[in-house]
Amino acid sequence: MDHDLILLGHGSGGRLSHQLLDELIIPSLSGISVAGQNDAAVIAHDSGRLAFTTDSYVVDPIFFPGGNIGDLAVNGTVNDLAMMGATPRYISVGLIIEEGFSKKELAVILSAMREAADLAGVQIVTGDTKVVPKGKADRIFINTSGIGLFDHDLRINGCAARPGDKIIINGTIGDHGICVLATREGLDLQTVIESDTAALNGLVTELLKEGEALHVLRDPTRGGVATTLKEIAVQSGVTIKLQEADLPLKDAVKGVCAILGLDPLHVANEGKLLAIVAPEAAERVLERMRNHPCGVDAAIIGEVTQVSAGAVQMETTIGGLRAIDMLSGEQLPRIC
Amino acid sequence: MDHDLILLGHGSGGRLSHQLLDELIIPSLSGISVAGQNDAAVIAHDSGRLAFTTDSYVVDPIFFPGGNIGDLAVNGTVNDLAMMGATPRYISVGLIIEEGFSKKELAVILSAMREAADLAGVQIVTGDTKVVPKGKADRIFINTSGIGLFDHDLRINGCAARPGDKIIINGTIGDHGICVLATREGLDLQTVIESDTAALNGLVTELLKEGEALHVLRDPTRGGVATTLKEIAVQSGVTIKLQEADLPLKDAVKGVCAILGLDPLHVANEGKLLAIVAPEAAERVLERMRNHPCGVDAAIIGEVTQVSAGAVQMETTIGGLRAIDMLSGEQLPRIC
Repeated sequence: MDHDLILLGHGSGGRLSHQLLDELIIPSLSGISVAGQNDAAVIAHDSGRLAFTTDSYVVDPIFFPGGNIGDLAVNGTVNDLAMMGATPRYISVGLIIEEGFSKKELAVILSAMREAADLAGVQIVTGDTKVVPKGKADRIFINTSGIGLFDHDLRINGCAARPGDKIIINGTIGDHGICVLATREGLDLQTVIESDTAALNGLVTELLKEGEALHVLRDPTRGGVATTLKEIAVQSGVTIKLQEADLPLKDAVKGVCAILGLDPLHVANEGKLLAIVAPEAAERVLERMRNHPCGVDAAIIGEVTQVSAGAVQMETTIGGLRAIDMLSGEQLPRIC
Repeated sequence: MDHDLILLGHGSGGRLSHQLLDELIIPSLSGISVAGQNDAAVIAHDSGRLAFTTDSYVVDPIFFPGGNIGDLAVNGTVNDLAMMGATPRYISVGLIIEEGFSKKELAVILSAMREAADLAGVQIVTGDTKVVPKGKADRIFINTSGIGLFDHDLRINGCAARPGDKIIINGTIGDHGICVLATREGLDLQTVIESDTAALNGLVTELLKEGEALHVLRDPTRGGVATTLKEIAVQSGVTIKLQEADLPLKDAVKGVCAILGLDPLHVANEGKLLAIVAPEAAERVLERMRNHPCGVDAAIIGEVTQVSAGAVQMETTIGGLRAIDMLSGEQLPRIC
C-alpha cells in the first residue's frame, strides 16, 4: 500500500528521492541517463552553451539564523549553475503564498532575494505569484530557476572523477541542516548555529583557474556530503575514500548530531561545495579556497580510488573502514 | 489590518495582483518598469536573444475535462515564451508534493507533461522534487520555467500596440475557467465544458510570417481577456475598443457565466492568444488562424483607438459603451 504513496523521504534528496527519480520521474519526463544527472542541465545550442536549473524551496521555518527562504532560494540556484562551471546570470522567481501571509514578512524575504542576487551578480528577470486559500500551503514556497552562461570550454561534470583525484570541501559540514533543525525545534543551544547559505560562484571563478585539473564540482545540499559523494561515485564509476579525521565540523554541530543521533555526513549544507581535482592541483585548490571568504575552513577530506566502482568509504578516527551510503528515509524534512 | 496581509485576490492576475507587483514585488526584486512587463523576459546577451519565463500551477482540481495540472503547466510556459515571438525550447519542472499523494496520479500527471512537451516540441531538461508533510500543501503544485530562442529580429511586445491596429483572438473565451469551476463545484451541466489548454507556439509560428505587421501577442490567462487588454492598453498608452457582438463564446460558457454572474471577459483561458496587428494584415492573420487547429473559431474582436490612453471600452450588443477594467478581487481562486 505504502508503495503507492509519496512519502516524506521522497523529498529527502537521499535514496528514496533517487528511487522516485529513477523509477518514475526521469523515465516519464525526459529519459536522461544517470550519468547525465547534474546540478543543472547544460544545453548546447547554435550560439553556445547554457546551464539551466530549477529548485523549489519549502524550508520550515522561513526565517533562521544566517538567512531566510529568500536568500536561500537565490543562493541555491546560483550554486547549482556554478557547480556546472557556468557563470550564473538570470534568475526567475515563482512565489506560492498562503492567503493571510504577512506582507511585511514578504517584503523582508524579497529584499533578501534582491540582496543575494546583487551579491552573486545575477539579475532577477521574470517571476510569477500564486496565492492559495488558507491551509492549502504553509506560508510561502519559492521556486527559483536560473540560467548560466559559459566563458570557457571546460566540462565540469559528475562523471569526471578519476582515480587519484583529491576531494576538497570549502568548510564545515552540516551547518545549514542543524541550524534549521535547532530553530524549528527551539533547541536551547549555548552557541547559535548559523546557516552557511551563500553564493559560491565567486569561489568557483577562482577554482576554474585550475582549468582541466578541476574535474567535478557539486554542492552537498539535501542528503549531505554522503549522498553527493555517492552520486558522484556512481556517475564516475569509482570508489571514493574519506578520512573522518579531516572532515571540518563545528563543535556545536558535532554536539547536536551526537545527541540526536544524526550523521553530519547526511546533514544539508547551503554554502558548501565539493571539488574533485587532479592530485597535483590539490594543494593549490586548497590555497585558493582558503584565500576566499567562502573557503577559510577548506580541507582535503579524501580521494578517489578504484577498489570497487560506485562506493564511498570512510576511514574512521578509530581506524576502521565504514561504508557510506546515501541518506535513507527522511532525516530532516523541509530543510530547504 | 487587511492591508498587511496577502489576500486570495493578490493571486487573481487582476488588479490586486498588479498592485502587489507594482508596490512590493517588482520594486523589491528588479525594478523593471511596467512597459517592460511581458509574459517572458527577453534577455540580450553576446550570442543572441533568449526568452525566459516561469509559472507555478496550483489549479484545483488537478484533473479536469481536457487536461490536468501537468499539461497545463507545460502549455502555459510554452505559451508565455511563444507570446514574445520566441521558439520555446527547454523546460524545467519543479514539483512540490504533499506527503501521501498517489504515485499513480503522479505518473498520469508526468505523462501528460511529457506528451505536452513532445507536442510543443520542447525538451524537459531539468527538475526538482520537494515533499512537504501532509496538510502543508494541497496535493501537488508544479512550477515550470522555460527558455525560448529567437530565429528572427521582430520585437513582439506589450508596448507595441498602435492606433488603427486590429485585435484578433484565436477562439472562444472563458472555456478553461468555467471548466475548472464546473469540475470543482460539481456543476451538473448538460454539456461538458472542456479546458482549452493547448500549446500555441505552432500557431505563433504561422502568425510570425506577417513580420512587422504583428505588434503584440499575449495569452489572456488569469484575469481573462479584459485584464490582458487593459495591461496592453496601459503599456502601449492607447485605448482599445471591443465589439461585444464579435466575442466568440460557447453557449454553455455563456450560460454558466449568466447564471453565476461572471463576466466571460474576466474568466481565464489556457489556449487562447490575443494578436494585435496592423489593420492591413488583419484579414490575413484571421485566415492564418482559422486554417490552424488552434484557431478555427478565430475572430476580430476590436481595434486600437486613441480616445484616452490606457483604457479598454466595449461597444455592447445593445449599443452602449462600457468601460472594461482588470478583474478586481478574486473571482475563481486556483484556476491555474
